[in-house]
Amino acid sequence: MQAINASIDVDKRLAAVDITASDAHARMLAATKIISQADCDAICNGLATIRDEIDSGKFQFSHELEDIHLNIEARLADLIGEVGGRLHTARSRNDQIATDLRLWLRGACDGLDAAIADLQAALISQAEAHTETLMPGMTHLQIAQPISFAHHLLAYVEALGRDRGRFTDCRTRLNESPLGSAALAGTSFPIDRAMTAKALGFDRPMANAMDGVSARDFVVEYLAAGAMCATHLSRLAEEIVLWASTQFGFIKLSDAFATGSSIMPQKRNPDAAELIRAKPGQIIAGLVGMLVVLKGLPMAYSKDMQEDKAPVFTATDQLMLSLAVMAGMVRDMTVEADSMAAATKQGYATATDLADWLVREGGLPFRQAHHIIGQVVALADKQNKSLAELTLAELQSIHAGFSKQALQVLDPAASLASKTSLGGTAPSQVKKAVAAAKKRFLTG
Amino acid sequence: MQAINASIDVDKRLAAVDITASDAHARMLAATKIISQADCDAICNGLATIRDEIDSGKFQFSHELEDIHLNIEARLADLIGEVGGRLHTARSRNDQIATDLRLWLRGACDGLDAAIADLQAALISQAEAHTETLMPGMTHLQIAQPISFAHHLLAYVEALGRDRGRFTDCRTRLNESPLGSAALAGTSFPIDRAMTAKALGFDRPMANAMDGVSARDFVVEYLAAGAMCATHLSRLAEEIVLWASTQFGFIKLSDAFATGSSIMPQKRNPDAAELIRAKPGQIIAGLVGMLVVLKGLPMAYSKDMQEDKAPVFTATDQLMLSLAVMAGMVRDMTVEADSMAAATKQGYATATDLADWLVREGGLPFRQAHHIIGQVVALADKQNKSLAELTLAELQSIHAGFSKQALQVLDPAASLASKTSLGGTAPSQVKKAVAAAKKRFLTG
Amino acid sequence: MQAINASIDVDKRLAAVDITASDAHARMLAATKIISQADCDAICNGLATIRDEIDSGKFQFSHELEDIHLNIEARLADLIGEVGGRLHTARSRNDQIATDLRLWLRGACDGLDAAIADLQAALISQAEAHTETLMPGMTHLQIAQPISFAHHLLAYVEALGRDRGRFTDCRTRLNESPLGSAALAGTSFPIDRAMTAKALGFDRPMANAMDGVSARDFVVEYLAAGAMCATHLSRLAEEIVLWASTQFGFIKLSDAFATGSSIMPQKRNPDAAELIRAKPGQIIAGLVGMLVVLKGLPMAYSKDMQEDKAPVFTATDQLMLSLAVMAGMVRDMTVEADSMAAATKQGYATATDLADWLVREGGLPFRQAHHIIGQVVALADKQNKSLAELTLAELQSIHAGFSKQALQVLDPAASLASKTSLGGTAPSQVKKAVAAAKKRFLTG
Amino acid sequence: MQAINASIDVDKRLAAVDITASDAHARMLAATKIISQADCDAICNGLATIRDEIDSGKFQFSHELEDIHLNIEARLADLIGEVGGRLHTARSRNDQIATDLRLWLRGACDGLDAAIADLQAALISQAEAHTETLMPGMTHLQIAQPISFAHHLLAYVEALGRDRGRFTDCRTRLNESPLGSAALAGTSFPIDRAMTAKALGFDRPMANAMDGVSARDFVVEYLAAGAMCATHLSRLAEEIVLWASTQFGFIKLSDAFATGSSIMPQKRNPDAAELIRAKPGQIIAGLVGMLVVLKGLPMAYSKDMQEDKAPVFTATDQLMLSLAVMAGMVRDMTVEADSMAAATKQGYATATDLADWLVREGGLPFRQAHHIIGQVVALADKQNKSLAELTLAELQSIHAGFSKQALQVLDPAASLASKTSLGGTAPSQVKKAVAAAKKRFLTG
Repeated sequence: MQAINASIDVDKRLAAVDITASDAHARMLAATKIISQADCDAICNGLATIRDEIDSGKFQFSHELEDIHLNIEARLADLIGEVGGRLHTARSRNDQIATDLRLWLRGACDGLDAAIADLQAALISQAEAHTETLMPGMTHLQIAQPISFAHHLLAYVEALGRDRGRFTDCRTRLNESPLGSAALAGTSFPIDRAMTAKALGFDRPMANAMDGVSARDFVVEYLAAGAMCATHLSRLAEEIVLWASTQFGFIKLSDAFATGSSIMPQKRNPDAAELIRAKPGQIIAGLVGMLVVLKGLPMAYSKDMQEDKAPVFTATDQLMLSLAVMAGMVRDMTVEADSMAAATKQGYATATDLADWLVREGGLPFRQAHHIIGQVVALADKQNKSLAELTLAELQSIHAGFSKQALQVLDPAASLASKTSLGGTAPSQVKKAVAAAKKRFLTG
Repeated sequence: MQAINASIDVDKRLAAVDITASDAHARMLAATKIISQADCDAICNGLATIRDEIDSGKFQFSHELEDIHLNIEARLADLIGEVGGRLHTARSRNDQIATDLRLWLRGACDGLDAAIADLQAALISQAEAHTETLMPGMTHLQIAQPISFAHHLLAYVEALGRDRGRFTDCRTRLNESPLGSAALAGTSFPIDRAMTAKALGFDRPMANAMDGVSARDFVVEYLAAGAMCATHLSRLAEEIVLWASTQFGFIKLSDAFATGSSIMPQKRNPDAAELIRAKPGQIIAGLVGMLVVLKGLPMAYSKDMQEDKAPVFTATDQLMLSLAVMAGMVRDMTVEADSMAAATKQGYATATDLADWLVREGGLPFRQAHHIIGQVVALADKQNKSLAELTLAELQSIHAGFSKQALQVLDPAASLASKTSLGGTAPSQVKKAVAAAKKRFLTG
Repeated sequence: MQAINASIDVDKRLAAVDITASDAHARMLAATKIISQADCDAICNGLATIRDEIDSGKFQFSHELEDIHLNIEARLADLIGEVGGRLHTARSRNDQIATDLRLWLRGACDGLDAAIADLQAALISQAEAHTETLMPGMTHLQIAQPISFAHHLLAYVEALGRDRGRFTDCRTRLNESPLGSAALAGTSFPIDRAMTAKALGFDRPMANAMDGVSARDFVVEYLAAGAMCATHLSRLAEEIVLWASTQFGFIKLSDAFATGSSIMPQKRNPDAAELIRAKPGQIIAGLVGMLVVLKGLPMAYSKDMQEDKAPVFTATDQLMLSLAVMAGMVRDMTVEADSMAAATKQGYATATDLADWLVREGGLPFRQAHHIIGQVVALADKQNKSLAELTLAELQSIHAGFSKQALQVLDPAASLASKTSLGGTAPSQVKKAVAAAKKRFLTG
Repeated sequence: MQAINASIDVDKRLAAVDITASDAHARMLAATKIISQADCDAICNGLATIRDEIDSGKFQFSHELEDIHLNIEARLADLIGEVGGRLHTARSRNDQIATDLRLWLRGACDGLDAAIADLQAALISQAEAHTETLMPGMTHLQIAQPISFAHHLLAYVEALGRDRGRFTDCRTRLNESPLGSAALAGTSFPIDRAMTAKALGFDRPMANAMDGVSARDFVVEYLAAGAMCATHLSRLAEEIVLWASTQFGFIKLSDAFATGSSIMPQKRNPDAAELIRAKPGQIIAGLVGMLVVLKGLPMAYSKDMQEDKAPVFTATDQLMLSLAVMAGMVRDMTVEADSMAAATKQGYATATDLADWLVREGGLPFRQAHHIIGQVVALADKQNKSLAELTLAELQSIHAGFSKQALQVLDPAASLASKTSLGGTAPSQVKKAVAAAKKRFLTG
């Protein structure tokens, strides 16, 4: 029974926030005359001692004492005697754990925001260096159109910006104080919930005591934001695995982020990228697990909720790790610009440019132009030529309207430069986008 | 192949927004002189005709034409001939579907906001009528402390308020226009993305064309908000199933929300509540499915993303249904106040009040008081009495400090009235909470 | 990088099976003359020493050495020098880890089979004592028909029997040897895969080397079986929470499986049952996580697969714990037979019996009988009587065919005794079912 | 309420099995004299008429009648009058739906078994043609060792064989009859459950009536088998997407399985493969959804279980579709053997062979040989040579023991031929494996 009931191995990570919350509670109890100032002082000193003991690794956590709250409470009684028992006036473990978890997650949101911003900085920095580096933009993993490496990286900067937005919204929504909800009904002691809320940096006390102890939607929201962010990272990780393959050869990973094989001496495996690709597994898992726990759970607090902490800690640790490793990998990667440029010449990447030329210069409806270029590609394919290798005569054999000028749009660099629409891949646009991204994401 | 590739059975629900977006695109193409005004007029008139055909059920959707875009485009060509082919200038199905889905989800967020608000209204209305209706507040499904039915219902009002907040944040974040991203690189046509963004009610164009066509985090965010909301509903549904059981007898469901049995003539089954309890299954499923699809998916658009629509439609339909049914069930339920009140007399619900009295009046540390009351409960249990049935002498046999006054806190109604802390269950507080909830959630 | 790459904190639980597999590999290398017998002896002695060091807690695990294989290999080199390097001939970490994990899971399947059988024994033992203990059988949590407590418990015995079947099937399917697959292609050394397979208790070598190192479906199958079993336990746990509530009062949990409250001195919370109810969260999570990892993963081994171990260990630990606690809880619970019997008199539990009587004795079609009894129930409800309290005259006012004999079927015990169909709740049937269950599940 | 309660849109797919089960039930009721033979004949004739009406599309399904059972029952009453009401004697919708779903899933298991076998046949057929077709075997998407295309494909044949095994086990476990469980308690009518079980092809009646109506683990097991199979397909689909990319160029998809772009005229997108890659999303989703529904659900039947059918139908449809499309894609693909062969010369694919040579011929411990070859690869890399381009002198500059013979193992074809261990990639082995696979998977 103790094995299933004790949570101390997991929840001891809440020690610091638990002490902070208890300190604020004690001071409020004194301010409202529920306990004496002397008792408050004794309690706060005791708590400070315990904090030191924990920080220095001297604290003895006990399984018999079940959880972090009882471990600290018991130690407080050791240190200051019976007066320690006054700390639990007008509160319950129900509001205490809810308070602790909100405080911890608030800090985690801040940590993740900084870590994502650092990855954005790494991406923007690489992007800045590669606004003119041609690479084949792909859809369906088929070569589609020439883009710049910067354009590609900035797509992730945007996605990560929204991830930050989700963590920010989550932080805002969870930053209300459940402290003083007591078991579920509130209390008859004349407590001041606004005072503890303020002391703990919460925006306000939660409006309903039962909700205060029963709500775990903030955990789900946090895990959902984390799952999405991890999934974004997995997409980039997949691309890194592809780019680092011999077949693509678009980048070379630094030795720090590639590992060897126990049997094949030549291997440089992108292990870090593969692990980041896999990490959504654990984080989506935590999200699902938490929803499973909450589904159909009657109010108010039930012990089922004890299962809320493990997924939170796992998700946070794995995501922080993934972000840091990804930032390092992006910063350290060597871009093989020649390979990328060579690849833009494959796959008829500028076929759309030729279609657009027919629309713009020839006045054809796009659908008709699209159809003509389909024939052009078929001809090139049959002759085993790239589009640029087709002669004007060959083009005109398909559509009389082609002129010499048309051949110019077949150059990948020209194609790149022409995509000047807002958010397009033209270097002129991408340079603006880099500057804007710096301002939106890396200042303040 | 057609069976797996065609999405028209699912995506035809996007017809209206697809036409709206095409209309805005055509007008922008004319305004920027990419097409002529006459062509634009022909296109817009054609689109209007198609909209009418779809609204009136006359439109023939075709599987051979794969998806909603090609169905509409083909019909446009039927109606206005080759000029219809000019509509697809400077756009791709990639940005088109992203635009459509964002428009549709924006509307869905609005619809859900209203539906949740209606459920809040139903809950607040019941709460208003029951601020003094005693019921046993439970933790661990064990009787904990007396609360009011209103206090319990308002907990859900709060939770639903946060659900609305998540949909609002999701709506804000997704309300950017991908239109003009084209395939992934932007376009060389001099389009005006700000113009289409404004025409479609988007806050701004998305900053990166590749992100514009590759991003589906808005779908995940929407499904996550939906999964959480459905899970909140499942908690209330579980409570309704419990409350409507013979064992609890706290409420009676109206005939509209209870059904019979094929074999047992006496049954009044809470089928609607059970179905709402089960619905997180489908919505969590959709969330997981979408994350699975996106995990490890390289940019830009891949056909995998076609799987984004089914979970969105399912989640929206099921959640709208659950909200409407729950609102009806809450409005129609009969509260069995006598049963609830009788239950508050069981389970030593006011034991904590007695402990608090010892702290407040006797000056004992809470932990010590808690210990004494533990002995009081054991005595009552042994004598098969409720706490209120214990004599003063019996109380004093355990702790000399008990006085006559202590007996008063054992009355459930007195206990209720005493929980005057902010957010507490005292009628005085709950009445304020009802007023505040009306203002926060039901106005504007 | 080391932080994300090292798996030793997790995979050190594979130490014992890794050594066992290496020992078998070394002996096979000697038998096939790939290494000398002397080298084999040195290796096996070294491995035996390492096993002792690990068993006694003296082994120093190192993060720099990344995983359990390299930790052991490095220690082997310390102990026996360069000859240790011969152990890795004709194998790779890819087949090594696959072998280890299959061996570990085979043992876990056996452990779970025994633990489930023990829970079945606890349930059967309680069932045997309660074949005549009346309780209200419920559907939709509404009182449906009288059943015996034994009948209810035996339903779980059946479900758990199928869970055992799934673990058995999983064990059979995974019990093939990947050892000798090497990296993915097999090897040019003249190894004898059948020999190592036999030595390790596998049924046969796997047929394809690439499949040998790439397959993880056995992990998914194991987790799926675990998720289902945990979900079965959660259903029983939910019922225990209900039964232990004041409102039901059907059972009393022993002190060992109920806990107190930090604020409410009277509480006896069914914490263990609540935690078991919540555990599917973690195990379903692991299942989802593993599927997410594998989705879209190209062959052969990728580092993503390193994420396979944590969910396996978590699921196994949590499920073993849940099974043991549930068995204890079932054995220790006190059945409140009087409360259960009283409850069978509520809710018109024998209405179906009366309908069946009309069919059997009155020759009415069931649908018509069902309709008549609906009116009978309405009459009783209106008069606030139980069915048994209705007079014959009252019954006949609804349907003339009722006779005195009809009243007899309204007794819950008579109803119970009448359900003699195969698998029915009649004590005569249930006693046979107990005997059959013992034979099927608890012998051999 | 009707909108949430009615399931007829979903469960009408059960019409055929529902009628089959009713027919068997009616015949048993007559055989046991519970109803007359004349009534039985009328019922069976009526059911046959309804079956015809449904088969021919004439049957009018009604939402008011909620589900398939009541739709059929009502129509039966229309057709044969009051006697139709005798069919529901001694059964309940609870055992009826459980029977229907088991019958349907039994058929689905059979259908999937055949569909998987057909995909295995397609893979084996391609394998048979390519036992000597060199391709670079990859781990971590890095070139590892030369393998044959056949070796690669046979890995999937094995994995799919286990998928079939899981469906077979699922089918066996679910093939027990719940019919006659009635609501949850069995019945007092003298029914013969063995008779209906036999008539419906079940192996035996289920042993406990409550389990009969409450169990849905067979649905979870089916969905888990489906999720794993879909995930296997997603792995192959990912490889097809890679192989069909310009960068790999290993295969060419037939026109039937590639599609164009709305904007890029040159594109040949592997849409079908992408969709198959995405399909685990829906099927894992269904698995999760079903587990969510069942978690914490008290017995016996609750309406929550109505949610079991949609995921079953979706999973079955999507998986059948994926299997058929994959089989077609595999059969139709063109293997670009030259590209594959060229790629085996990249990435130092035979480095391990050289290490093995040092072990075999030079007597070095593998670890030492591995270290030496690491230096050889570094030298080749520095000189921008393949291993085969290194001179003997260069090799000997690193390790004196290299001889001319060593150079021979650097040839990819020689490497391939040397991997003669059981399950290895040597053509001699793979040919045996093809023959064995045909025998194990494609006969009987």
